[in-house]
Amino acid sequence: MLTINRLDSEDAKILIEGARAKALEIGVDMCIAVNDEGGNLIAFERMDGGKITSIGLAIDKGFTASGIQKSTQALGEVNQPGKPAHGISSTLGGRMVAVGGGLPVFAGTDVIGGIGVSSGSPSQDHDVAQAGVDAFSQYQNNKT
Amino acid sequence: MLTINRLDSEDAKILIEGARAKALEIGVDMCIAVNDEGGNLIAFERMDGGKITSIGLAIDKGFTASGIQKSTQALGEVNQPGKPAHGISSTLGGRMVAVGGGLPVFAGTDVIGGIGVSSGSPSQDHDVAQAGVDAFSQYQNNKT
Amino acid sequence: MLTINRLDSEDAKILIEGARAKALEIGVDMCIAVNDEGGNLIAFERMDGGKITSIGLAIDKGFTASGIQKSTQALGEVNQPGKPAHGISSTLGGRMVAVGGGLPVFAGTDVIGGIGVSSGSPSQDHDVAQAGVDAFSQYQNNKT
Amino acid sequence: MLTINRLDSEDAKILIEGARAKALEIGVDMCIAVNDEGGNLIAFERMDGGKITSIGLAIDKGFTASGIQKSTQALGEVNQPGKPAHGISSTLGGRMVAVGGGLPVFAGTDVIGGIGVSSGSPSQDHDVAQAGVDAFSQYQNNKT
Repeated sequence: MLTINRLDSEDAKILIEGARAKALEIGVDMCIAVNDEGGNLIAFERMDGGKITSIGLAIDKGFTASGIQKSTQALGEVNQPGKPAHGISSTLGGRMVAVGGGLPVFAGTDVIGGIGVSSGSPSQDHDVAQAGVDAFSQYQNNKT
Repeated sequence: MLTINRLDSEDAKILIEGARAKALEIGVDMCIAVNDEGGNLIAFERMDGGKITSIGLAIDKGFTASGIQKSTQALGEVNQPGKPAHGISSTLGGRMVAVGGGLPVFAGTDVIGGIGVSSGSPSQDHDVAQAGVDAFSQYQNNKT
Repeated sequence: MLTINRLDSEDAKILIEGARAKALEIGVDMCIAVNDEGGNLIAFERMDGGKITSIGLAIDKGFTASGIQKSTQALGEVNQPGKPAHGISSTLGGRMVAVGGGLPVFAGTDVIGGIGVSSGSPSQDHDVAQAGVDAFSQYQNNKT
Repeated sequence: MLTINRLDSEDAKILIEGARAKALEIGVDMCIAVNDEGGNLIAFERMDGGKITSIGLAIDKGFTASGIQKSTQALGEVNQPGKPAHGISSTLGGRMVAVGGGLPVFAGTDVIGGIGVSSGSPSQDHDVAQAGVDAFSQYQNNKT
């Protein structure tokens, strides 16, 4: 039997709050999703003005980052023409998102979930996801 | 051109908090979704212990209730054999949920969104969704 | 952060071996799937003669039982006409299977995964899944 | 009427064991799938630590390789921009995988199935799949 560490519901709120604060700072209303380490959704928030096409994108970025255990931005690089994973973005019924905005969430070396952000540019989405991860890291450090 | 009334992000939180309070009271961890009047997800929370099969069910109950403008419990009644809508539960790729736990949210006579709850019995899910709607009604009344 | 117990790869083999032994005993070649507590597939075996339509059914029964934390046979009962969950079998894109053959796997009171069996009658599938669970229980008892 | 040669359940285990041995050797936990010549799954194993996004990828790589009767790595080459099959990776609802890790399994000149591996780099996945095929070839030679 395995023993797994996983984000809980409170952790998810910290991640979303950190991301939302950054989204407000840069002035882009975002869709923000937090998934667990199995890819299942824990929490989601669409800020007023978040794009409707970004609902699924945010959820699937969080899913992808949980699964691949790195950023969707990094997946985007190997998905480019000429790279060996070119075309991976259409796998899993298109749930495998190769556009920036998804990040795994770690506790030590364990992936315990993922965050996915969408509505801005891939770079803005990535930065907002990173702000969520940073807020969670600070929260973890404060607890220990 | 139409002017549409729609739940905002703060409203969604009121609905979720009202539902979560009831879920805690009855001791059943729930998945709770709030969708807008267009069926698109605004906010979602899976309480620790909410079922993974209930993630999609909660979202689709909120979607269904927004769309049909009545409860998914009521849809369940007309989905029964011998009733004219029997089989409607398999439409829309199965997103049309005919099991209790989804309720439309009104402002006056306008449907401005829906709430979907899943993880308990259909009756428990319905009651928790109703508690979310009640909390929102009280919040609206307090504002006016 | 949550700490979750989950079936590992060896556990999955015990479950499949227990189910296969029963399938051989009753003379029905089966598809047998083991999913983790998040619904994700750990292991699958189609015995020679297992039905091709049963591949997805076994996987989805394991998924469903993990999620609902009871048997798919029990879900089948509340999915019957006149019951409040009638029609639930078409939710989640049809992944919610309300036919016998899926069972949750417990460690104490924790659901740590599920097993799904298909190719025989619902009752045969249920019995074969149960034999897998029984083999796993015996294996756990021997370890402690 | 046709008489078809097809991997049986024991063959699938040989393929998975060969692949798993290589995965352990290179230190990457893998998802490993074996499909028959009709593309239907025979057996699957997710090693502890195999990625959840790789479950479907492994299965679909085995499916693709069975179908196209060459490696998914080779498909990746003709899927690149400027090549005549560019874009084929999004066909079949995304099940057509154009990333290394899928190989057909032959008996003489007949394709009798496919193996799909995922969780490492495309090149690692390919090597692990090849190790599975090699183990099966040796097993076939020993029998004759």
